[in-house]
Amino acid sequence: MPHQLKDIHAVILAGGSGTRFWPLSREACPKQMLQIVGEDTLLRQTIKRINGFVPSENIWIVTTEDKAQDIRFHLQPLGSLAKSVQFIKEPLGRNTAPAIGLAAIYLNRLSPGSIMIVMPSDHAIPDAQKFLNDLKLSIEGAKEDYLVTFGIKPCRPETGYGYIKVVKGSEMGPKGFLKVERFVEKPNLEKAKTYFSDGSYFWNSGIFVWKTSKILSEIQNHLPSLYPTLKEIESILFKHNKPNELKEPNKPNEPNKLNELYSRLDPVSIDYGIMERSADVLMVPATFQWSDLGSWTALDEILGKDENGNILKGNTIDIESQNSIIFSGQRLIATIGLKDMVVVDTPDATLVTTKDRVQEVRKIVDALRQNGREEHLVHKTVERPWGSYTVLEKGVGYKIKRIVLNPEAKLSLQLHRKRSEHWVVVSGIAKVTREGETYLVNTNESTYIPVNTKHRLENPGEVPLQIIEVQNGDYVEEDDIERFDDVYGRT
Amino acid sequence: MPHQLKDIHAVILAGGSGTRFWPLSREACPKQMLQIVGEDTLLRQTIKRINGFVPSENIWIVTTEDKAQDIRFHLQPLGSLAKSVQFIKEPLGRNTAPAIGLAAIYLNRLSPGSIMIVMPSDHAIPDAQKFLNDLKLSIEGAKEDYLVTFGIKPCRPETGYGYIKVVKGSEMGPKGFLKVERFVEKPNLEKAKTYFSDGSYFWNSGIFVWKTSKILSEIQNHLPSLYPTLKEIESILFKHNKPNELKEPNKPNEPNKLNELYSRLDPVSIDYGIMERSADVLMVPATFQWSDLGSWTALDEILGKDENGNILKGNTIDIESQNSIIFSGQRLIATIGLKDMVVVDTPDATLVTTKDRVQEVRKIVDALRQNGREEHLVHKTVERPWGSYTVLEKGVGYKIKRIVLNPEAKLSLQLHRKRSEHWVVVSGIAKVTREGETYLVNTNESTYIPVNTKHRLENPGEVPLQIIEVQNGDYVEEDDIERFDDVYGRT
Repeated sequence: MPHQLKDIHAVILAGGSGTRFWPLSREACPKQMLQIVGEDTLLRQTIKRINGFVPSENIWIVTTEDKAQDIRFHLQPLGSLAKSVQFIKEPLGRNTAPAIGLAAIYLNRLSPGSIMIVMPSDHAIPDAQKFLNDLKLSIEGAKEDYLVTFGIKPCRPETGYGYIKVVKGSEMGPKGFLKVERFVEKPNLEKAKTYFSDGSYFWNSGIFVWKTSKILSEIQNHLPSLYPTLKEIESILFKHNKPNELKEPNKPNEPNKLNELYSRLDPVSIDYGIMERSADVLMVPATFQWSDLGSWTALDEILGKDENGNILKGNTIDIESQNSIIFSGQRLIATIGLKDMVVVDTPDATLVTTKDRVQEVRKIVDALRQNGREEHLVHKTVERPWGSYTVLEKGVGYKIKRIVLNPEAKLSLQLHRKRSEHWVVVSGIAKVTREGETYLVNTNESTYIPVNTKHRLENPGEVPLQIIEVQNGDYVEEDDIERFDDVYGRT
Repeated sequence: MPHQLKDIHAVILAGGSGTRFWPLSREACPKQMLQIVGEDTLLRQTIKRINGFVPSENIWIVTTEDKAQDIRFHLQPLGSLAKSVQFIKEPLGRNTAPAIGLAAIYLNRLSPGSIMIVMPSDHAIPDAQKFLNDLKLSIEGAKEDYLVTFGIKPCRPETGYGYIKVVKGSEMGPKGFLKVERFVEKPNLEKAKTYFSDGSYFWNSGIFVWKTSKILSEIQNHLPSLYPTLKEIESILFKHNKPNELKEPNKPNEPNKLNELYSRLDPVSIDYGIMERSADVLMVPATFQWSDLGSWTALDEILGKDENGNILKGNTIDIESQNSIIFSGQRLIATIGLKDMVVVDTPDATLVTTKDRVQEVRKIVDALRQNGREEHLVHKTVERPWGSYTVLEKGVGYKIKRIVLNPEAKLSLQLHRKRSEHWVVVSGIAKVTREGETYLVNTNESTYIPVNTKHRLENPGEVPLQIIEVQNGDYVEEDDIERFDDVYGRT
């Protein structure tokens, strides 16, 4: 059905911060940007999984204004696919019902009569083909004006997921849809055990398929305060569009009004706001393996364990640990006799905890935030649109970075008021602009950028350029930068 | 008794490798060089504790040839005291009986009729004054031709220590010596419980006091194969000395013969070889607190715990852990809900284990050795006689170091065949010699040392000099160095 699929859009929700995977996740590197399972990051896997099922220009990412640029850079490795993907930006995070409502407003104008698939950006679905098969089925239900969701057959009495209770014996003919009786919030262990043995309870996957018009009318019915605000937002976004140029919304000339409207919305989830209240919900019992990766222990469901029940990744040496997760990078993590534990190492922070308390990692992040520290914000290696930099050391009066520039990449023309910089090229060739003069610096050569000097670093070559930067100055923080020209639009 | 104390010598055994404190201890940084308890490293504390009780020139360190120079550098912070301390070098490690025998041979020639105090270099004795009081008593026993040792009153049924069983009711008058019935090897838990409740068992502290002549005659009686070899070694060492110049032995002109003799010795401990066999052993029940620091868990005896039974050191955030030891440095170690665990972090390796398996850290070190790795050999920061260097990063074709030179320190005049070096001064002033030319490099200036170029780095100032060194070359290992002149005798 290639023709019909043009009217199907994939809406990927990518607003999460992913505190629960600290120290691997940071504010600037939330869970969807991590490669914790599979061959790529969760967000890029999500896009690749759906691409082709819908045309790439029908893939939408819903995220907040402040995260959009980082996500755009994060998608670069996807090449032309990254360029096709479109963004719907929320002024700020307001939970899933407003985010989905905003996407529905967009799609209803740009592609009337379309079907939308709503997907989180940070779940694990190892078998894409099974997922797409189930998705095909779900679209049949959406066409008949149902809200279709996917239920995962529980394999244990899990207390970390919401449940969907289906009407027993409700199979709608050969297609296998189940009629939903109700949505159930995360249960305690006793209830979870009952659900597990009952057979009519499924885990709520958070993936939904429906007509755009249908979800808007359900919002109108069940969230009467959200609907009129969405219509008001629509009128601002599409104010000057003529009917035949509805490819994209206008740049709103009232951004403050938009922000104000959006920030007033109740932060309600689509499950609580719509799914629990609607009478038209169907569930597809998923044939695909799934995890919402709600915490480090979720890896147990989705990654292969060794014969002792361990998941060991990176530079580890273990002696007789059992049922533990050891996530290392470059540094050595040596473990002896651990049982049911989680150890996660990153260059600047290590987490050690028991599996049953892994959710409390939020408390560590809270403590870091309250103490004005940095280990919850960024990694030592920071990905940038032009490559990456790694802080090797920071001391009194200096900071040392390794900077990697992708082929043909170009930093902004910039200036620092409080620091000078020594650059030593350790691989590749650098093109340096310093106060108007431009020159090349080869491997094993160095150059110097005095304070208050306009400069720019480029990689004119076809291999990565690596330089060691030694910053000197009383103040060596990232915010001492004035940008004059930037190919990534960051001036 | 100032006059008599001149004839008392302190012999500090410093041959240990201290695998059991990995990753804090390394081959190049054994346990005695660690500051794990108290204000200084264990070895320097040991020297400071005894200094004054005996004259500083009567303090001897027995260690192996290969460790002697590093230990000499390690003592530098002791200033003039470091210069007084003398070394007795074993060609290689052969356990305590040969080491003590070698020391006795020296002292018997250099200071006939002397008393020697034998002390490990890596034990914790927090209260020096109590220790010296007990030591004074022990010397009275040694003068009467007893082998005197110190027993520690057990505070729990410990299986990690050897025991001394004393003859009940054997107190020798007011002095409080106890007559030793026998030495007992490390017991199992059942036996340890019996010993603990019995009251006549003490922990064997490994500290001994005796006349030099007495221990030699006991060696002659109980270790008949050791004694003649020691006499042969003596004849080589003191071959050309005339009776009135016996201040120090000659440089042996037969070093190979010496090595051969020493390597043939049975590696037997003084406890097994002498103390368990001699009839003339007395024990002083120690009034001082003591730990042999046999493993990470020994810290529980000697360091203060918080209200949850934890010992937290360095950059840590903990949530509700109990009875655990968390040793961190600069990097953040975040822990949640640990019980009876040990976590030790260093810049390149982290250990996580349970307290009851902490002895198995040896297996980790064995694995590292077998796999040809480096994490058991050196730290990222290496102490040198002139200061220290820290490897910040090593990559393909480059290595980055932070180098700290003490005031007025001077590296060797040297040359590298396979790498060039870029130096950026980040604090202090550097004096650089490059192919005969000498010049100053100020903070925030840099210089370049091409491959195959003789060069030298000095700190002419009175504050530490810090430079960042970026090495370039296909081969950037430490052994690419030719030294032409070195103030520390390393050419």
